[in-house]
Amino acid sequence: MPTDIEIAQAAQLQKIIPLAQQRLGLPEEALSPYGHYKAKLSLSHIDSLQPRPDGHLVLVTAITPTPPGEGKTTTTVGLGDALAHIGERAMICLREPSLGPCFGMKGGAAGGGHAQVVPMEDINLHFTGDFHAVGLAHNLLAAMLDNHIHHGNALGLDVRRISWRRVVDMNDRALRHITVALGGPGNGYPREDGFDIVVASEVMAILCLATSLSDLKRRLGAIVVGYTADKRPVTARQLQADGAMAALLKDALAPNLVQTLEGTPALVHGGPFANIAHGCNSVIATRTALKLADYVVTEAGFGADLGAEKFINIKCRKAGLQPACAVVVATVRALKHHGAPAQGLAALEAGMANLQRHVENIQQHYGLEAIVAINRFDADSAEELALVQAACARWQVRCVLATHWSDGGRGAQALAQAVVQVCQARQARPATIYTDDMPLPDKIEAVARKVYRARAVQFSAKAQQQLAEFKAQGWEHLPVCIAKTQYSFSTDPKLLAAPEGHEILVRELRLNAGAEFVTAICGDIMTMPGLPKAPAAERIDVDAQGRISGLF
Amino acid sequence: MPTDIEIAQAAQLQKIIPLAQQRLGLPEEALSPYGHYKAKLSLSHIDSLQPRPDGHLVLVTAITPTPPGEGKTTTTVGLGDALAHIGERAMICLREPSLGPCFGMKGGAAGGGHAQVVPMEDINLHFTGDFHAVGLAHNLLAAMLDNHIHHGNALGLDVRRISWRRVVDMNDRALRHITVALGGPGNGYPREDGFDIVVASEVMAILCLATSLSDLKRRLGAIVVGYTADKRPVTARQLQADGAMAALLKDALAPNLVQTLEGTPALVHGGPFANIAHGCNSVIATRTALKLADYVVTEAGFGADLGAEKFINIKCRKAGLQPACAVVVATVRALKHHGAPAQGLAALEAGMANLQRHVENIQQHYGLEAIVAINRFDADSAEELALVQAACARWQVRCVLATHWSDGGRGAQALAQAVVQVCQARQARPATIYTDDMPLPDKIEAVARKVYRARAVQFSAKAQQQLAEFKAQGWEHLPVCIAKTQYSFSTDPKLLAAPEGHEILVRELRLNAGAEFVTAICGDIMTMPGLPKAPAAERIDVDAQGRISGLF
Repeated sequence: MPTDIEIAQAAQLQKIIPLAQQRLGLPEEALSPYGHYKAKLSLSHIDSLQPRPDGHLVLVTAITPTPPGEGKTTTTVGLGDALAHIGERAMICLREPSLGPCFGMKGGAAGGGHAQVVPMEDINLHFTGDFHAVGLAHNLLAAMLDNHIHHGNALGLDVRRISWRRVVDMNDRALRHITVALGGPGNGYPREDGFDIVVASEVMAILCLATSLSDLKRRLGAIVVGYTADKRPVTARQLQADGAMAALLKDALAPNLVQTLEGTPALVHGGPFANIAHGCNSVIATRTALKLADYVVTEAGFGADLGAEKFINIKCRKAGLQPACAVVVATVRALKHHGAPAQGLAALEAGMANLQRHVENIQQHYGLEAIVAINRFDADSAEELALVQAACARWQVRCVLATHWSDGGRGAQALAQAVVQVCQARQARPATIYTDDMPLPDKIEAVARKVYRARAVQFSAKAQQQLAEFKAQGWEHLPVCIAKTQYSFSTDPKLLAAPEGHEILVRELRLNAGAEFVTAICGDIMTMPGLPKAPAAERIDVDAQGRISGLF
Repeated sequence: MPTDIEIAQAAQLQKIIPLAQQRLGLPEEALSPYGHYKAKLSLSHIDSLQPRPDGHLVLVTAITPTPPGEGKTTTTVGLGDALAHIGERAMICLREPSLGPCFGMKGGAAGGGHAQVVPMEDINLHFTGDFHAVGLAHNLLAAMLDNHIHHGNALGLDVRRISWRRVVDMNDRALRHITVALGGPGNGYPREDGFDIVVASEVMAILCLATSLSDLKRRLGAIVVGYTADKRPVTARQLQADGAMAALLKDALAPNLVQTLEGTPALVHGGPFANIAHGCNSVIATRTALKLADYVVTEAGFGADLGAEKFINIKCRKAGLQPACAVVVATVRALKHHGAPAQGLAALEAGMANLQRHVENIQQHYGLEAIVAINRFDADSAEELALVQAACARWQVRCVLATHWSDGGRGAQALAQAVVQVCQARQARPATIYTDDMPLPDKIEAVARKVYRARAVQFSAKAQQQLAEFKAQGWEHLPVCIAKTQYSFSTDPKLLAAPEGHEILVRELRLNAGAEFVTAICGDIMTMPGLPKAPAAERIDVDAQGRISGLF
């Protein structure tokens, strides 16, 4: 089997402007090309689509992740291609990969095998520059903040209470914790600071939740960068940074059109973290795709306890989206991992509890019909597959085998047919887990008890103090975004399968006044990854003709 | 008079693909569009142009700068437009503006008035992402460096002797001097560090001097990032960073085609500092333009003592370029500034010494015929203009008045005619000031004595030690790049007009082993600007339709 990049480079891509005309009926003037195989859709054309009816929105989510990955992006792409195979007008909505991790462990993030979005090198590297724009807008605010303090600090910011860090799209552990403004009075007031990776920026979350350029600017202005000595919040608007930040982001707000290896149109746009942020592609891209296609397949980060929960309770709630069904991706290998230390069929049997829990959550708490998609590997035995299918039959849940990784869309046709049946039946009653007017701690408890099946939620002294402050400041109405390990329903990554009765400790809260959610930090959350001992960057290369190798 | 951005936004731009076909005979497949008004020229098409003869290369330089600026970029654009007006096939080669300063004092840097390259907002902001690519490639090397040390430091780098800083395209004084890798063993080994602005990166200089993708990778590999405890240099190649850095830069290496307000094609590509680096647009862009046009107008940073000297002794020497003539831009206002504290005509008379000195240098030391271009202002009196013209007549130098700022190319037709006459006469004998085999201190002395008219050059103890080390390491053959104030021939910014007999102190040297020059630091050189008290960013805005305001 060739590598992902070899498959991608061997593909015959269609030029994006004619593809958009043929597949989506988009006129040339609606598109701004970036090379011949990428284009941005103009925001004014998107506005003109408003009167059209919406297509069906299909969420691809997964069981609790295991280190080798389950193939959620691959399944999203394969399902989109398969829907096209069976004659439906389909589109795919994905997040943009972060550039930093490509140089670390992970390689690319544009699908894999015969289910990829292309041009994969571009998508994995600079793409259309959206992440660079997010990083610069973020860092402009940081520079204006320190500049304001340097030039007299009229707003009275307390240098000990600045919450706005800086960002770079690189895995660079040396920047996690730094001191800045050293070297004398000409360089400002020394203070502690640090860099996060660009995807962890609140500006990224804002870009992905904004519904228009005006809404983007309004949200940017609402960002709280720090506090005065008497704990009054100071915003980006008070620093007069919102206009320039929005100017830097105006092109980034327009969604990016590319194609799959089979020519299915895909919008790849935005990419917030799925722990400290909501982990979904942009609202603008999803809404646009729903106007252009009858079936829109999208994904959310990590497992259904994190990404799907936030997709429902943050993105769909705020953007008024109505998903029709959820595909839960699982692999036999991952289910057996959840059943360890048992071996073989016993491990698989035990690990099925994880899948069952996610299916229950999706149906009971998100109000969606779940379809289980087994991302099939050659190593899977007939007994193993029969065991999974029999269990799903007992739970009265559809279960479909899919081989899109090796076969492309053809390998996911049964999945596509199941999705169409569910969407046509229109039985989805999307539900949110909490109401806007519930107090913040009750919202956190609702997610923890219903989705994570926790026995109790504890709040640290710091978190309690923050909750009181947030209430006093009028942020009680915001939804919550829980940052915890993706490897367990609990906050202990070693508790696999379907733990219950555990406790959740909320250590601190982080306000995202512009993105409009409150993040509850439960455990160690890394917002700046490091590179491994032998980073992928050492193997990445480009030849004299510009052909890149070593991305995978 | 409307503002620059108002003029630019009122312009009717031609789509860049048909413009490139009509004006330059470029086929569509030679171009990669970035939106409808910007495109990158493919490197493979550029290779195919090789057999063609070269056009005439015209350098636009200036007298010693004064704070309000003399209009060098404006004259470059106006002259290009004027050459087209008089029927010549002309192109313009400019540097890309740095994004950071747009948010500080300076506003945009894409010309002004009716002599601009457009789309000016794009060119001044993210453009085609080249600077983002330079910044990321630079920071990838920094991350790999600290990662190497963190994971055992097999190369034995001395954390006290690391010379590779980090970069961001932002005016951010708080990042000038920082400490990194704080917070415990998981974050690496604490050390002093700092950020420069992206244009100060050696990667930027390398991008602008590289002649091909292979040459780019070779140069990136040669970058020295620091030294071992026993002072052996450690390179990017030893860190295995060169391949991934080149992969990040492969699109950035292709020059960017845009147009002037009058539709003259312009390559805007690369933008190294003109003090610590050589201050010219890319070699690839200049060479390409010479294949596509009969007249190529380009500029170099600051006055003719800095930018033009480096253009000749670094860029032209290394790239084998043969400029045909030099246009020296001056304004009556700036000449009077050089003649202060005298007033009126007496000030102008005194300030003429500065122009005379630059003209002499260009003719005697650079081997080019000089043409003086007076960038005319409404406030200039007939007596003042007559004084300048009479002086030039005494020196037997052509002097032309130009009004391109208010009149576009039409206002620079006389200048264009003078340029054509000089180029047709082919009397240029471009000369370098020193030979490759001269010792580094002799090269520095040659520039200081001939161009700056210094009496003597002193080297600090540190500089002397560095010179010995560089000689021992085999870097003696490199050209020198002198970093000093742009406001005087001397190192004292207050010595205006034409000082002589001053001393130059070389405080330290900086090796650019990849860019292949040695920078001599003479005075305080700022590689990370700060924002002013009321930064331009506070006034920059974008409306709901995406129209940007406040850039100027």
